[in-house]
Amino acid sequence: VLPSDLVCSRDPEHRFSPAQLHTLCPHDAAPLLVRYPPASLRRDALASRPWSMWRYHEMLPVENVTEAITLGEGATPLIPLPRLAAKLRFDGALYAKDEAQNPTASFKSRGMSVAVTAARRLGVRALVAPSAGNAGGALAAYGARAGIPVRVFVPRDTPPTLVEEMRTFGAGVELVDGLIDDAGRSAAAYAAETGAFNVATLREPYRVEGKKTMAYELVERLGEVPGTIVYGTGGGTGVIGMWKAFAELEALGWIGSQRPKLVSVQSEGCAPIVRAFESGAQTATRFENASTAAWGMRVPTALGDRLILAALRASGGTAVAVSEASIRDGMHALRALEGADASEEGGATAAALQHLIAQGAALPPPIVLFNTGSALKYAPRAQDS
Amino acid sequence: VLPSDLVCSRDPEHRFSPAQLHTLCPHDAAPLLVRYPPASLRRDALASRPWSMWRYHEMLPVENVTEAITLGEGATPLIPLPRLAAKLRFDGALYAKDEAQNPTASFKSRGMSVAVTAARRLGVRALVAPSAGNAGGALAAYGARAGIPVRVFVPRDTPPTLVEEMRTFGAGVELVDGLIDDAGRSAAAYAAETGAFNVATLREPYRVEGKKTMAYELVERLGEVPGTIVYGTGGGTGVIGMWKAFAELEALGWIGSQRPKLVSVQSEGCAPIVRAFESGAQTATRFENASTAAWGMRVPTALGDRLILAALRASGGTAVAVSEASIRDGMHALRALEGADASEEGGATAAALQHLIAQGAALPPPIVLFNTGSALKYAPRAQDS
Repeated sequence: VLPSDLVCSRDPEHRFSPAQLHTLCPHDAAPLLVRYPPASLRRDALASRPWSMWRYHEMLPVENVTEAITLGEGATPLIPLPRLAAKLRFDGALYAKDEAQNPTASFKSRGMSVAVTAARRLGVRALVAPSAGNAGGALAAYGARAGIPVRVFVPRDTPPTLVEEMRTFGAGVELVDGLIDDAGRSAAAYAAETGAFNVATLREPYRVEGKKTMAYELVERLGEVPGTIVYGTGGGTGVIGMWKAFAELEALGWIGSQRPKLVSVQSEGCAPIVRAFESGAQTATRFENASTAAWGMRVPTALGDRLILAALRASGGTAVAVSEASIRDGMHALRALEGADASEEGGATAAALQHLIAQGAALPPPIVLFNTGSALKYAPRAQDS
Repeated sequence: VLPSDLVCSRDPEHRFSPAQLHTLCPHDAAPLLVRYPPASLRRDALASRPWSMWRYHEMLPVENVTEAITLGEGATPLIPLPRLAAKLRFDGALYAKDEAQNPTASFKSRGMSVAVTAARRLGVRALVAPSAGNAGGALAAYGARAGIPVRVFVPRDTPPTLVEEMRTFGAGVELVDGLIDDAGRSAAAYAAETGAFNVATLREPYRVEGKKTMAYELVERLGEVPGTIVYGTGGGTGVIGMWKAFAELEALGWIGSQRPKLVSVQSEGCAPIVRAFESGAQTATRFENASTAAWGMRVPTALGDRLILAALRASGGTAVAVSEASIRDGMHALRALEGADASEEGGATAAALQHLIAQGAALPPPIVLFNTGSALKYAPRAQDS
């Protein structure tokens, strides 16, 4: 259904109409979050609906589900990981949520599907975003589907497969010296110059709405709230979206007050959230000289830092930095032991789980590791070659 | 449920027990097809089942669905293609069945999931197959999941991304001079030498069972039999499997006697089935010097030629060869116009549709184009670069 209002994530007194295009809260530059009128969505109403995240359309920002700009995103499988669990001597249920099985092979499709749907409803004529890789491909696909031109700004060293993917969907791609925050400045300048709408992470309120459906799917499929969610964190929309979703699911009566522990995983080469979590800070500072083979997690500054850190703490969760070698090992374990098409980001969650188990951390089952995208995007390399 | 028997596709008097491992019919070297005892599978029983092809497990060869070697394959979306329909001046419903949204990003996962499940039940200790590209990646993933070692034989010029994908799942890959039938001879020799079980297309009876689920999904989602199915044809298991599925669906009471027109699409650079169809032959001869950028369709001889040709004719369908340029144009149209992650094989179906409409062919709606895999596997190239 259409939202009732957009609410500032810093000060809930700042509210805005969903009938206009908004970016950050004009008063304090914080991300806006979407609120809906009291809604009814019963699990047994879902049975005959298509296998896509739009099955939850009562909690997505559309008047009618036929408005959705969709490529069948969501409804991704939960893959049991018995061999990895045995290897890690974890005796509870362990799963991978395989987001590689989305359009454009990553979880970014969920957010872009909703963002482009909302942008089209509000009359946007051109779209722009910075990207560490996967977001650009998703935006290019959904922009093409909506008939809205797309421009993407990416770091110059982005893997060529990703750049070509965007171009084959008809998007213009600009290579920028630096990292995603540098690309973000170029995208913002382009938006200011041309009037294109900037859908950078959390700079507009709707990508979070797509990401939150991951939590809806977990609860629909598991029939319960997971005990622990382990999530590779770049911009953090997934963590923020899922945390929002559990509150919505409680309001819908699907779950009670229980919540999963949220674990944010970053590479030692780019760990601004982990550093802030460990220091007790409420916000994160830029991680200089960021470097990791997990391209999607190479995000030195996150606009949603405050929301991510608050969700981790409220959930009783934690933040973990893992080495590049352990990321490769985790990716290899998921692939060769379980057959899951894990990328580096997926491998990082397996590495973090191993680390936490070795530390003796209490991780309630079922545990869900998120594989946020396919290794095909980075042209996979065998461990022994 | 477990099959009742395996029946020779040439002579139904030749029947074999599903309790043993079988390859081709020993009497006439024809593929074997799987038969089940009379079963009940009601559409309304599916509602709460996971989003995977194993939702149809009453018609798949397992005693209990928990035996399935699964990565969540199937339950792929049907994407409406209104812009392509308008461009082609087709005013009926037109869809893409997006098989890129499978594990290992192609439709091959369906067949390998069932083949590896059956192989494990029957005690297979090692697996081997030739591959034009996508099948090898799928076999490598499901072999890893089952804990069974895999060897794949591929043409030497196979795109490196595909070879690396297989290796990252732990498979051994051998590069062979020549095409997939040459690789097939090497795989057969390896099987004979080592005792590894050869799951080459149609040489064992279970890959077809996975592929047939594409038709189950079409009927479950559309609520009717599609009018026309347009399918890029290499080995032809998809056409054979779907044709088998419609007969099963009639026996289950889901549909009546109506059938879709089946259209096989090949490249002008490798069109053995089209040549045989046009000449009225019952079998196809080898297509010499086969060459196409649609790697999955570079199959100069198909063991299932007789079954493919019979299905096309019985359905009132046809076979169409399209140029390499029109394949690229079709791929570009699906990507830039619709946002679908079309590979060359998907592009070929759009090209064939355009060709048939221009010829004035009667194509009953709804029409379903199959996008059998993601362009990421071949490292996509923008049309204008």
